[in-house]
Amino acid sequence: MVELRITVTFKKTVEDSEGSSVLKALRLLGYENVTDVRTGKVYFITLSKGNRKTAKEFCEKLLANPVINECAVDE
Amino acid sequence: MVELRITVTFKKTVEDSEGSSVLKALRLLGYENVTDVRTGKVYFITLSKGNRKTAKEFCEKLLANPVINECAVDE
Repeated sequence: MVELRITVTFKKTVEDSEGSSVLKALRLLGYENVTDVRTGKVYFITLSKGNRKTAKEFCEKLLANPVINECAVDE
Repeated sequence: MVELRITVTFKKTVEDSEGSSVLKALRLLGYENVTDVRTGKVYFITLSKGNRKTAKEFCEKLLANPVINECAVDE
């Protein structure tokens, strides 16, 4: 059994409006030391067999939009 | 500077409909070896100063709903 953890984030150049909202909210809650918030989606995928190489295929074929997203396969 | 990575997932007992959709889609794409998909949100938070303990406060006060979510602070 293989457990994959795939994280899909926005590219640095792409506006992350949810991140901006969370940043504002944390500041309003009094956390003045928060300087940046970026968000992303994480997928925990279980394979009965196979290997980690398929994770890149999952990114390309389904999970990430290459125009705006980056996709990382965590160890 | 402190970099936090906070992952918010659904509790195991809570239906994860996005995860189910991704599972179906991967099967349709021919990946029969995928047995489970769970999704979550990830927040990359940068602090100018302070420590990792505030991450738990961020979860409790803003990022996670304790009824349906679990919140993990990654090292």
